[in-house]
Amino acid sequence: MRWKCTCAYDGTNFDGWQRQTDGNAVQNYLEAALSRIFNNQTLTHGSGRTDAGVHARGQCFHFDAQWSHDSGKLIRALHSILPTSIRIHSARRVGDSFHARHSAVGKRYIYHYYLGRADPLQERYLWACRSVPLDVEAMCEAASHLTGTHDFTAFGATHGKDNDPNPVKTIHRLDLKQRGKRITLTTEGSGYLYRMVRSFAGGLYSVGRGRLTPGEVKEILESKVRTHRIVTAPAKGLCLKKVFY
Amino acid sequence: MRWKCTCAYDGTNFDGWQRQTDGNAVQNYLEAALSRIFNNQTLTHGSGRTDAGVHARGQCFHFDAQWSHDSGKLIRALHSILPTSIRIHSARRVGDSFHARHSAVGKRYIYHYYLGRADPLQERYLWACRSVPLDVEAMCEAASHLTGTHDFTAFGATHGKDNDPNPVKTIHRLDLKQRGKRITLTTEGSGYLYRMVRSFAGGLYSVGRGRLTPGEVKEILESKVRTHRIVTAPAKGLCLKKVFY
Repeated sequence: MRWKCTCAYDGTNFDGWQRQTDGNAVQNYLEAALSRIFNNQTLTHGSGRTDAGVHARGQCFHFDAQWSHDSGKLIRALHSILPTSIRIHSARRVGDSFHARHSAVGKRYIYHYYLGRADPLQERYLWACRSVPLDVEAMCEAASHLTGTHDFTAFGATHGKDNDPNPVKTIHRLDLKQRGKRITLTTEGSGYLYRMVRSFAGGLYSVGRGRLTPGEVKEILESKVRTHRIVTAPAKGLCLKKVFY
Repeated sequence: MRWKCTCAYDGTNFDGWQRQTDGNAVQNYLEAALSRIFNNQTLTHGSGRTDAGVHARGQCFHFDAQWSHDSGKLIRALHSILPTSIRIHSARRVGDSFHARHSAVGKRYIYHYYLGRADPLQERYLWACRSVPLDVEAMCEAASHLTGTHDFTAFGATHGKDNDPNPVKTIHRLDLKQRGKRITLTTEGSGYLYRMVRSFAGGLYSVGRGRLTPGEVKEILESKVRTHRIVTAPAKGLCLKKVFY
């Protein structure tokens, strides 16, 4: 039988989601715990990878295993083995046609900027930029150019793993809200290229600092060429909030 | 010349405030950084110790050193050496009569309870109690018995370091606020015995669970005897917010 789980993790000390040979990825810990519970090697399939240092509040994965007890008991069993930096929010039986990656129709990410020196109790979860104001209005204008359906090659990683054969994605939402020294970027889209959200965050930061204009962001997008003018924002500010099915 | 600093730290991975021979206390890191900046062994005096795992947003300390530049430069120099889990919020010159511990007239602490399974992005900073409601009204009633001037021997640690010769303290404020699954205890007082705030938090938790009545809390306080009925709440929920001078 197939199980769908949602989980949260503090990505600070993990080498990302995807299983690694050294065993320090979130997936390694989940699979080790499941394999111990079911006394049988159990593989998981995530909705997609997250980079080292990226957090999640709503990552989804599935696995196949026989379990005759209820889901609460499964979650408690997992929590007795997993480090506290990984928690399972829900587990439920799904049909065999469900696939955490293939069935996903979209994702929501948030990115936190902080204008100044971050408190040590928050700094793991945001990008503490220097204490300079950002032009949020210009950032919002640039964000509007990045919404809609586009070829996002210019905002994908030039190198790297898991190259997505289809660079055309639909971004339904990309907005920014400032509350005091904290600026939160929220994005929802059909899918994202490798490092695309961090490239959005880095590109919009450059607009906020006046290093790029909203018009230049539009031109870079339309060029379909990744350029050094788009920086990749640090992983720690990023959090995968929700996977839509 | 004497300098007064306020600092914040994530206590999770430190062996408390007070310098340790193995070097893993907050004070060790601060003194190592200052000694490197001033090229001379520099000792700090804190407002008081915090236990291993306890956090701070407003710990104060002082030290004596010659520094001809401004305080911003001193803070930047410290931040270039300190781990990011310790940040200096302010540094200013004070008169030689100032002493971080002796001059303090009070402190504010907060303690966070969370009713349920905490998110990994928050669990370092709160006590995730089981998913049972707490009787906050009864907790508030018990808290009212703990405010005022009393001999707090029954809420101090029976063993331990740094035994305070005077168990009589004045608690000006001890209140609880619930917002969703989070309950925040705030206390301000003239001073606290070793583990006193965590004993308040543990005692009030027992009241919330119905294991103690507010009247029993009053009786325990008046007995001036530490009893196993008062549990010490976990360090991770506690944060030193402010030292008053």
